[in-house]
Amino acid sequence: MAQMEYDTLSITDAVIARLTDCNDPRFKQVMTSLIRHLHDFARDVDLKGDEWFKAIEFLTACGKACDDKRQEFILLSDTLGVSMLVVALEHARALKGRTGATPPTDATVQGPFYWVGAPDTPLGGDIGEGVSGEPALYNGRVTDLEGKPLAGALLDVWSGDGEGVYDMQRADSGMKARGRIRTDHEGRYWFWSIRPTYYPVPDDGPVGDMLRKMGRHPNRPGHIHMKVSAPGHKEVTTHLFVKGSPYLDSDAVFGVRESLIVEFEKHEPGTAMDGRKMNKPYHVANFDFRLIPTS
Amino acid sequence: MAQMEYDTLSITDAVIARLTDCNDPRFKQVMTSLIRHLHDFARDVDLKGDEWFKAIEFLTACGKACDDKRQEFILLSDTLGVSMLVVALEHARALKGRTGATPPTDATVQGPFYWVGAPDTPLGGDIGEGVSGEPALYNGRVTDLEGKPLAGALLDVWSGDGEGVYDMQRADSGMKARGRIRTDHEGRYWFWSIRPTYYPVPDDGPVGDMLRKMGRHPNRPGHIHMKVSAPGHKEVTTHLFVKGSPYLDSDAVFGVRESLIVEFEKHEPGTAMDGRKMNKPYHVANFDFRLIPTS
Repeated sequence: MAQMEYDTLSITDAVIARLTDCNDPRFKQVMTSLIRHLHDFARDVDLKGDEWFKAIEFLTACGKACDDKRQEFILLSDTLGVSMLVVALEHARALKGRTGATPPTDATVQGPFYWVGAPDTPLGGDIGEGVSGEPALYNGRVTDLEGKPLAGALLDVWSGDGEGVYDMQRADSGMKARGRIRTDHEGRYWFWSIRPTYYPVPDDGPVGDMLRKMGRHPNRPGHIHMKVSAPGHKEVTTHLFVKGSPYLDSDAVFGVRESLIVEFEKHEPGTAMDGRKMNKPYHVANFDFRLIPTS
Repeated sequence: MAQMEYDTLSITDAVIARLTDCNDPRFKQVMTSLIRHLHDFARDVDLKGDEWFKAIEFLTACGKACDDKRQEFILLSDTLGVSMLVVALEHARALKGRTGATPPTDATVQGPFYWVGAPDTPLGGDIGEGVSGEPALYNGRVTDLEGKPLAGALLDVWSGDGEGVYDMQRADSGMKARGRIRTDHEGRYWFWSIRPTYYPVPDDGPVGDMLRKMGRHPNRPGHIHMKVSAPGHKEVTTHLFVKGSPYLDSDAVFGVRESLIVEFEKHEPGTAMDGRKMNKPYHVANFDFRLIPTS
């Protein structure tokens, strides 16, 4: 008769052996590694029954906290550095075998506030209308790794407001500070929004409790998100960070890349470079995106 | 200025460093190990962004599947062998430093179907009334490790029915096949219920999808659950398994202990050992529980 019972060591191979009939080699590989590391973790800390049960309750509470506008498991992954690790692994794979070319734009975490279907915004449009915060003009180009401009590249942009709050976090808010902008024939883009500020990740749920218990602050430095894509090129999910913002050296989700920190130049009221008349001070942020070709 | 960005290796120490201000040493130890193993897992399999997102969706679906009668995360932990590993670690700790004495009753998983507040059942009572399945008389003693009977020990018992379904899994069912029985002055217990049969763990949710993708069956061998406790002794959460049941050698949750496999002796209709007149065949299962003293 086959073996029926296992000890604290042999159980790991017993669980992995149940994957014998798995016909998806990659799934088998991932689950085998997951089981081994999970069991190693439990053994390493000599996990107690009541600690295990607290973990079950924590995961359940994370699931219950998720709805169409909140994703507590992404927040958990972000704050444990797993999201940024996966981004860095993806980036390393994308760069593999490429030598000599200018490095592409760094990727960073998507975070829990992406919302599919942001409104199409013409070049020079203002996605910050009705949003609190100091106005900012974003501009630059989208190019390939040789610096060749990419016409018709898409920037899918989102950010919180000048108080660090996303539209999704305000009851009954429609989309705010979101837009999809396409580059012109010379690969140029420009649009208006507000200058984002630092803010805490949502910390009124189980992940917030975890951060407090870990003795950590929940804050992220000011940043604006975008997914940048173009035909024949890989999409990059990234941020622009506001130079000088608090928490650049202790981002709660480990997302900062020095290459993504941008000066928001302060300008006095007057005519901006795109001809817009500004009756209050505004900022100008310039950044060029470089995309990796798909082949 | 402090370091702001990390590579696929240095990010792990960066996340762990954020525990500097954690003032709970055990929580710090557990989270440090968890972070290290989670990151090692992601690196070992070179985790892809879309795989990571599927994992987020899977965990979210597990949370959504949980309600007051279903606990998908316990099921996940059970089927990945983590629950049984934690039980085995607990058991090893409880035995530490004890030598010579008769071994205590083995522990096994609690599973997702425990329900606090089962009805008090007198000795000889039948908790299987109105439950499908062949009748069975359970009897034996609760003792300490020297074999001394423990009077007033409590058996909190639950099982599925003769079709392998728990009350919690039937819509609008009250408690069925559950009861709390106390031993008499000689440490003896006896009660009637049904002989449980093998059954699949609930496989209509995300964990069921996972098992199918792993190429695994979801079945558990026939068993009855109980928590056995007595003043001055450690409570044990365990099962009695039905000897000869299918799946004893491939329990979906790895819970089998050979010491917990019990012969269900078949008897023809007649007067049972407790005087009950049986007009149909019945089974008798005998098992003595041995509890570990708390000091």
